[in-house]
Amino acid sequence: MRRAIELSARGLGSTSPNPVVGCVVLGPDGRTAGEGWHRQAGGPHAEVHALAAAGAAARGGTAVVTLEPCNHTGRTGPCARALVDAGIARVVYAVADPNPLAGGGAGTLRAAGVEVAAGLLAGEAAAVNAAWLTSVRRGRPHVRWKYAATLDGRVAAADGTSRWITSPAARADVHRLRAESDAVLVGSGTARADDPHLAVRGVPAARPPLRVVADTEAAAVRPGARVLDDAAPTLIAVADDLPAERTGRLGADVVRLPRAAGGRGLDVAALLAALHAREVRSVLLEGGPTLAGAFAAAGAVDEVVGYLAPALLGAGPHVLANAGITTVAEALRLRITDLVRIGPDVRITAVPGCLPEEL
Amino acid sequence: MRRAIELSARGLGSTSPNPVVGCVVLGPDGRTAGEGWHRQAGGPHAEVHALAAAGAAARGGTAVVTLEPCNHTGRTGPCARALVDAGIARVVYAVADPNPLAGGGAGTLRAAGVEVAAGLLAGEAAAVNAAWLTSVRRGRPHVRWKYAATLDGRVAAADGTSRWITSPAARADVHRLRAESDAVLVGSGTARADDPHLAVRGVPAARPPLRVVADTEAAAVRPGARVLDDAAPTLIAVADDLPAERTGRLGADVVRLPRAAGGRGLDVAALLAALHAREVRSVLLEGGPTLAGAFAAAGAVDEVVGYLAPALLGAGPHVLANAGITTVAEALRLRITDLVRIGPDVRITAVPGCLPEEL
Ligand SMILES: NC(=O)c1ccc[n+]([C@@H]2O[C@H](COP(=O)([O-])OP(=O)(O)OC[C@H]3O[C@@H](n4cnc5c(N)ncnc54)[C@H](OP(=O)(O)O)[C@@H]3O)[C@@H](O)[C@H]2O)c1
Ligand SMILES: NC(=O)c1ccc[n+]([C@@H]2O[C@H](COP(=O)([O-])OP(=O)(O)OC[C@H]3O[C@@H](n4cnc5c(N)ncnc54)[C@H](OP(=O)(O)O)[C@@H]3O)[C@@H](O)[C@H]2O)c1
Repeated sequence: MRRAIELSARGLGSTSPNPVVGCVVLGPDGRTAGEGWHRQAGGPHAEVHALAAAGAAARGGTAVVTLEPCNHTGRTGPCARALVDAGIARVVYAVADPNPLAGGGAGTLRAAGVEVAAGLLAGEAAAVNAAWLTSVRRGRPHVRWKYAATLDGRVAAADGTSRWITSPAARADVHRLRAESDAVLVGSGTARADDPHLAVRGVPAARPPLRVVADTEAAAVRPGARVLDDAAPTLIAVADDLPAERTGRLGADVVRLPRAAGGRGLDVAALLAALHAREVRSVLLEGGPTLAGAFAAAGAVDEVVGYLAPALLGAGPHVLANAGITTVAEALRLRITDLVRIGPDVRITAVPGCLPEEL
Repeated sequence: MRRAIELSARGLGSTSPNPVVGCVVLGPDGRTAGEGWHRQAGGPHAEVHALAAAGAAARGGTAVVTLEPCNHTGRTGPCARALVDAGIARVVYAVADPNPLAGGGAGTLRAAGVEVAAGLLAGEAAAVNAAWLTSVRRGRPHVRWKYAATLDGRVAAADGTSRWITSPAARADVHRLRAESDAVLVGSGTARADDPHLAVRGVPAARPPLRVVADTEAAAVRPGARVLDDAAPTLIAVADDLPAERTGRLGADVVRLPRAAGGRGLDVAALLAALHAREVRSVLLEGGPTLAGAFAAAGAVDEVVGYLAPALLGAGPHVLANAGITTVAEALRLRITDLVRIGPDVRITAVPGCLPEEL
């Protein structure tokens, strides 16, 4: 299963809106007969690749797969059927398919006399599939919030400069995160301060992620902004009460959304719903602190990836603002899932205080 | 030498104002004949312990020692002489003794026909001895600044609560840092907000560190403050222009110091000099952000130890304030020397951007 999970991770960034799935087919002798992973939306599923690689050796064998085999006839045939047809005797999967359209594969397999076991390394498999699982279970994209800060938690200096706090190695790592995401999101404050490009550089990306700016008043993204070039598609989210002439001149796709009730900016749930409707399953929220605070307050941060540079500023904007927390007992508690040094910097990854199984 | 460095570290917290020193004596056959470390100020030096353990096996052997053997007759005899008398043929040491009183041991050894080699693992040995080396070279104590913060760099919540941001495991680790220090220092803001005790709990401390509060106006530490109990000695630093009746009523030792020129509070160099004069060689600066900012601006932070809890607050005071830095290019750049997980938290240790050899 560990190998199947590794294989599944190869699909990150190219299978959305589908899950990532890895599959290892063992022959009746227990040796690996075939491997496969879901490579891209619309292409064959992991099981189909692995069965093809195994050929006749699959007969009487075991399929180890990270997600419950699907049961529905979509762009490709149902995998449960394909496994039965190939003569697979036993299926071991990690995570049950929560998708009402695809679920029930295990039942089909059992009805056809295949032995089925579930739950092996479910936590690890679910973590790799966090984007897809979140979007199926919550009906909104998975949100990974990334920030780059000094040891004292500043994302820019007092004069607004933020280039560069972290090292080239850390910045390259961010491009990898972008390449894994369906969309990259910033607030109007960041668009105004940094004129960011938000495109993937230096990493092969199957599909450039959608660049999204939450620009309530359609005032921060001006003609000529770097985010408007043709490196990737761009979506500007604005308030639904703006006059049409305010939004027509950008040449970018514009979505009109309700304002946050009582708060500032756009309604977070509406923004996520609009992205979900565009088949966005994973969002890389790149700040700034105000927009990230609104997401944290809305319970819409599923993972935090912080790049910490060993540097001190003592002044400047903070990592996170206005999350609606006033006392330590209310702090948003997380659990560290990964801690590594990247060049001279540190990368900390954390998720809200629950196990991946509970996602 | 690695073993000698390990031995030297056992003296941390009990040898001040002396250095920590470890020594391994190898017999002529190259086997370990004796080990020793400097255990406490006034007691025998590491070489004397190791020679005693080795006995006759030292004759014709090698002494591996973390610091150049001393040459002066202080509370104990000169070690260079003791090594010659024991018949040691070869001395390998890591760090040269910068102390004008004790230095020159290598010369004495060579003059007596002992082969001498220097510099082996000097960086590692110097790091363990950072407090003493800093105090000899700079004429002021070594300053280790410790903070405990959330991932977003807050040391307290918006309402001022800070208990507890980090885990019991991280807090226990802070008591270990205190036990290694000669003094623990906070500013008047922290004294007022938290009424901290600043004593060592749960860790054997050879000598309870001096508790110091920088309380310019003698206004934050009130009678009954926890820092005034008898768990450890206490020093209140106040401005030298205060009327005497303002400082008489605390029952604690008071030192009068000049105010910072043009800045707020007390002059940092004068405060450090006053501590140095009291044989304080290592200070654990426990905040708050304002006092830490003044130390950073004065170039008086030699090591940073940050405890990061995986939690978000989005509001509240920051790790560091008013360090006099306005743009990213001026950021105080550090180098990470250690990164570990402590319970659910992370501890990051960093030093200003120079190698330990350059301390
Ligand atoms: N180092 C890093 O990782 C990093 C990353 C990003 C930014 N930064 C720095 O952060 C600074 C900008 O920070 P910022 O906080 O002003 O920018 P921001 O969070 O990007 O933008 C905030 C703005 O977004 C708009 N917005 C739309 N919907 C919102 C919602 N639901 N909640 C909150 N805001 C919403 C609001 O303005 P309107 O309603 O008027 O549109 C709000 O003022 C810059 O200095 C930048 O360099 C650093
Ligand atoms: N989590 C942590 O690691 C941690 C640690 C400590 C504190 N805290 C939190 O930090 C907050 C207190 O922060 P703070 O910044 O007000 O406290 P602070 O840094 O402890 O105290 C600042 C005060 O110290 C005095 N001072 C004396 N000499 C100074 C100098 N050279 N430079 C600067 N100040 C000097 C000044 O007041 P006078 O001149 O009037 O005396 C100054 O206002 C509290 O909420 C506390 O809970 C957190």
